[in-house]
Amino acid sequence: MELGLIGLGRMGGNMAQRLLRGGHRIVAYDTDPKAVQTLTAEGAEGAASLQDLVGKLKQPRAVWMMLPQGEITESTVHSLVPMLDRGDLVLDGGNANYRDTLRRVPAFQAAGIGFMDVGTSGGIWGLEDGYSLMVGGDLEHFKRLEPIFQTLAPAADRGYGRVGPNGAGHFTKMVHNGVEYALMQAYAEGFELLASKEEFGLDLADIGRIWSHGSVVSSWLLERCVMALRDDPRVRDVKGYVEDTGEGRWTVKEMVDMGIPAPVITLSLYERFRSRTPDSLSYRLLAKLRKIFGGHAVKGSTE
Amino acid sequence: MELGLIGLGRMGGNMAQRLLRGGHRIVAYDTDPKAVQTLTAEGAEGAASLQDLVGKLKQPRAVWMMLPQGEITESTVHSLVPMLDRGDLVLDGGNANYRDTLRRVPAFQAAGIGFMDVGTSGGIWGLEDGYSLMVGGDLEHFKRLEPIFQTLAPAADRGYGRVGPNGAGHFTKMVHNGVEYALMQAYAEGFELLASKEEFGLDLADIGRIWSHGSVVSSWLLERCVMALRDDPRVRDVKGYVEDTGEGRWTVKEMVDMGIPAPVITLSLYERFRSRTPDSLSYRLLAKLRKIFGGHAVKGSTE
Repeated sequence: MELGLIGLGRMGGNMAQRLLRGGHRIVAYDTDPKAVQTLTAEGAEGAASLQDLVGKLKQPRAVWMMLPQGEITESTVHSLVPMLDRGDLVLDGGNANYRDTLRRVPAFQAAGIGFMDVGTSGGIWGLEDGYSLMVGGDLEHFKRLEPIFQTLAPAADRGYGRVGPNGAGHFTKMVHNGVEYALMQAYAEGFELLASKEEFGLDLADIGRIWSHGSVVSSWLLERCVMALRDDPRVRDVKGYVEDTGEGRWTVKEMVDMGIPAPVITLSLYERFRSRTPDSLSYRLLAKLRKIFGGHAVKGSTE
Repeated sequence: MELGLIGLGRMGGNMAQRLLRGGHRIVAYDTDPKAVQTLTAEGAEGAASLQDLVGKLKQPRAVWMMLPQGEITESTVHSLVPMLDRGDLVLDGGNANYRDTLRRVPAFQAAGIGFMDVGTSGGIWGLEDGYSLMVGGDLEHFKRLEPIFQTLAPAADRGYGRVGPNGAGHFTKMVHNGVEYALMQAYAEGFELLASKEEFGLDLADIGRIWSHGSVVSSWLLERCVMALRDDPRVRDVKGYVEDTGEGRWTVKEMVDMGIPAPVITLSLYERFRSRTPDSLSYRLLAKLRKIFGGHAVKGSTE
């Protein structure tokens, strides 16, 4: 079928390619003309502006936004709604906060435009392996776009589904990413212990490979651990500075709001914060207190 | 090839069956004669005692112990060593503490008997899907038993390997189980948050299925979460009382000994302890302190 795609970054660009390979007509727009050119070379129809994209789609239109959450998504929604017609359909495949999504729904409803929030997982592997799609919205809209979901998913019968009404898709993706933080932390801690037992001379990538077949800890993430450890057995090719992009924080804030304990997800988020401040005030104060009350030796300032 | 197997419980019994299907000759012994009978019906040669098992194996023998760690493994080793001859080989596939394993090695060495510790993962799924095998011991012994490992593993070219010298197999399996605790805890927290968002009416099993294809959190354990949630969407068919069998504790103690932080693995272990004491003294004291210093209402005693 036909789909307008706004945002051709790491995720959107690959998704467009997968849809093109699946035989869909893609009208593609990005603020970066080079990203548009790359996709027109792959068979997409390029658009020079949002208005141009809307004009090149047949009614009722379907437009998929694949944009960074926050201001860019917000302003695109504001620009897009007046350009579209009743019966058109907008999908937000980005990692929007589900509360923002719920706040945006009335503007679509008032204009008679359908809306779906599509939590999308798969990273850069999605192009070849397919994406996992958690869809929030009306069943009618879900059915209409199902051929697109089937092409993006790993197979036509799996890896996508309508999980609930608007907001449920982004909520489910938020929790997915919270779980992801904790899974990553679990492997990271395990491999650190394996590495620390120097007398056994363990080959971490080899152990990851053994674990990947038939073991209780086998997973998609474990396979990526193997890739990282194979490149550099002690992962010295990167700094231990771990960013976060919002979803982990939202998950923890949501659990605090609801009064539900999520100790391991929370701690995994804090470990990321900690990785960025290894010489923190709290540690300096701990060291200094030990000196003050116990006369214990401390290391000199790092300044 | 030929293998003696001691211990025909959930793990050992299934492993014997998988080996029989793979064309190996199995001499099987268990203190429970019924377990032996079950396996002789499957084609194994039954043994009535350890001595009988040893007598029915051709030299150089290979004997695999698949026993609960601790006293049973210890006493079996003590009984077995004097019955065996130089050049024989013993494998411990149970979840022994690697420190116990290292302590046992000299007795085998003194008798000229080979020894390998084989961390074995796969649970009750191993019979059909194969086991993940983390082997500690001499390369020469590993090579000798490789046909057995190849049959037990998911395929002849994956899921097993020599990870290091004696002790390294059980050490690697211990860390594997520590990681497993944290992975389980991560999913458990995520599904609890999904369930708590009642207004979205989320179908947890369905979300687990979507996540299982193309998502970053897809894993063997996630597939088992789907089975649990499919049986009972809010898992009310079991009590939230979570046992542990030792490996998680050993992992945490090891990390404490080495001074390596494992916050998420540690907390996952504590969450299991906590699940068994929901009305703990610490919580009662917290509630009472709030009453004492703030006049806050408390709930009555549960006695």
